[in-house]
Amino acid sequence: MSELKNDRFLRALLRQPVDRTPIWMMRQAGRYLPEYRATRQQAGSFLDLCMNAELACEVTLQPLRRYPMDAAILFSDILTVPDALGLGLYFEEGEGPRFRKTVRSEADLAQLKPIVAEDDLGYVMAAVRTIRRELNGAVPLIGFSGSPWTLATYMVEGGSSRDFARVKAMAYDQPALMHRLLALLADAVADYLSAQIRAGAQAVQIFDTWGGSLSAAGYREFSLAYMQRVVARLPEEADGRRVPVIVFTKGGGQWLDAIAGCGAQAVGIDWTTDIGSARRQIGDRVALQGNMDPSMLFASPARIREEVAAILAAYGHGTGHVFNLGHGITPGVNPDHVTAFVEAVQELSPQYHQAD
Amino acid sequence: MSELKNDRFLRALLRQPVDRTPIWMMRQAGRYLPEYRATRQQAGSFLDLCMNAELACEVTLQPLRRYPMDAAILFSDILTVPDALGLGLYFEEGEGPRFRKTVRSEADLAQLKPIVAEDDLGYVMAAVRTIRRELNGAVPLIGFSGSPWTLATYMVEGGSSRDFARVKAMAYDQPALMHRLLALLADAVADYLSAQIRAGAQAVQIFDTWGGSLSAAGYREFSLAYMQRVVARLPEEADGRRVPVIVFTKGGGQWLDAIAGCGAQAVGIDWTTDIGSARRQIGDRVALQGNMDPSMLFASPARIREEVAAILAAYGHGTGHVFNLGHGITPGVNPDHVTAFVEAVQELSPQYHQAD
Repeated sequence: MSELKNDRFLRALLRQPVDRTPIWMMRQAGRYLPEYRATRQQAGSFLDLCMNAELACEVTLQPLRRYPMDAAILFSDILTVPDALGLGLYFEEGEGPRFRKTVRSEADLAQLKPIVAEDDLGYVMAAVRTIRRELNGAVPLIGFSGSPWTLATYMVEGGSSRDFARVKAMAYDQPALMHRLLALLADAVADYLSAQIRAGAQAVQIFDTWGGSLSAAGYREFSLAYMQRVVARLPEEADGRRVPVIVFTKGGGQWLDAIAGCGAQAVGIDWTTDIGSARRQIGDRVALQGNMDPSMLFASPARIREEVAAILAAYGHGTGHVFNLGHGITPGVNPDHVTAFVEAVQELSPQYHQAD
Repeated sequence: MSELKNDRFLRALLRQPVDRTPIWMMRQAGRYLPEYRATRQQAGSFLDLCMNAELACEVTLQPLRRYPMDAAILFSDILTVPDALGLGLYFEEGEGPRFRKTVRSEADLAQLKPIVAEDDLGYVMAAVRTIRRELNGAVPLIGFSGSPWTLATYMVEGGSSRDFARVKAMAYDQPALMHRLLALLADAVADYLSAQIRAGAQAVQIFDTWGGSLSAAGYREFSLAYMQRVVARLPEEADGRRVPVIVFTKGGGQWLDAIAGCGAQAVGIDWTTDIGSARRQIGDRVALQGNMDPSMLFASPARIREEVAAILAAYGHGTGHVFNLGHGITPGVNPDHVTAFVEAVQELSPQYHQAD
């Protein structure tokens, strides 16, 4: 593989010195970009786009042509694993993801298809290989998966949910069944991320989108424990280079101390957490990724720059910070505002990385 | 007015000794009760039900006939104030609240109708007086309002929102306009709650349903500051008795320390916060209200009892705890599970209130 020309992102995740704070955006390949909408239309459905390595590569690279991002992220869906397990993922326009089958009993669990990610999710690995080839070492490629708990919420509910009543009733009332489902998912996710790493992913992120819906005790038992299991099973290196893991629990700000101990090199935080307090709390145990409110991108470029300055100042001097939004970018954002955002990080962050 | 027979709730809010932990449930008069659904059908629309003092009183009392709750809460909507300001509140079936007009400019703000709650929201005061008469001193009556920020989100967005993009863009980009709207709302809410207290409310709760959507700094500036302004303007006593104020920010667990300093006697917490940690953090500055996950009511009565036991143990010995859910009860809960919930609090809590 070609040599990595910009390793700022990987270095910051490992808390090694950098010249400036690296930046990428969750959902940076997405609907706010007209070129994404055009490719999406060409592909047919959202899943067709995910399953076509050339088109998935194209949309992955689109934001990098506009903005000097320090990382690319694989374009895919968080629900590919449950789909491969046999649940039948589909999307209703404007409705979010749905599954044809759900998992609500021992019998449902027994019917899940055993999978080998390399084969059953081969289309994802093909996309990873294509993107690595096309990136040609410009920036590192991030692989990702949904967390076991987050995948379980969709599998039990059959789709998105407002209150997660079904999956929580299962967790609270049939903990043994829930733990079997989560253990199965943790192993599948570990296999999936390992295969992505073998295919070329240089860092991986676990998206725990719905861990924040749990109680403090429930989070440790049903979400964090299984992310820990995933992290423990991942290869530490690929091509002689460390492959850092980022764990992102939306709404997990109250549990940072526990999350910092899960084995990942970095913790993503949403915008409700003050990044300065977070750093004081976790010390130098892990790197932090985040955390501008995605809605800030609807404000003026000048206001966006102010906010970037405030977040950089709150984190303070030194490495260990990867700039990002606190959640995925919202469709409807003006792409020029993203320019202002990325420029602000590039221009304002070097002062925090000068040698003492 | 008749003498109050059960003042356990008011005493716990003021951290005075009680014989057991008092309990009530947010949205206890609601759709999970068949008798509520019947009255609702009889009333016509949801707003017709809120505006009819006799029927609002009837649904307020319904949960008390089934369960030995330690407080009643006025049946009303959080959006009565913006409706009175002239925005035209209506409900689309299954869609949540909508406003005919929105507030997005100085001109919109200038068009808001000045209100005097006693007159313009007279139907709410009539309901308060009717409920107090019918309660006949059995338990205290809680009045309530949405927080200024929460009301502003609906007024700017025109209804519910997933990401609050419009109202946040206004807050971030036009802070002066946002502050004028919030100041106007704080004064209206203070007038509204004061009128409820004069009409007979014996405690009041400010529902800050969407404060948790803000960044840490944004929360202090746009939500907490205005709740503080409301609290400072409320009468401290009515009929010679202290009228405690409860502030509840859903998703505010990271900001408890700041919330505890806003002047309210009690802070409501949702289920994502460990109530033991919360108590250690805030000490005896305020009482705490909460915080069982509403979805726990979908689990078995035995499991519900276990969870009540865990929350009581986490809070520990002594007064200052009002048991509640961490958010409103979910439609679809089996009313018998509420029986198990309330009984568990009644039976398991006295041991935490024995004299040392």
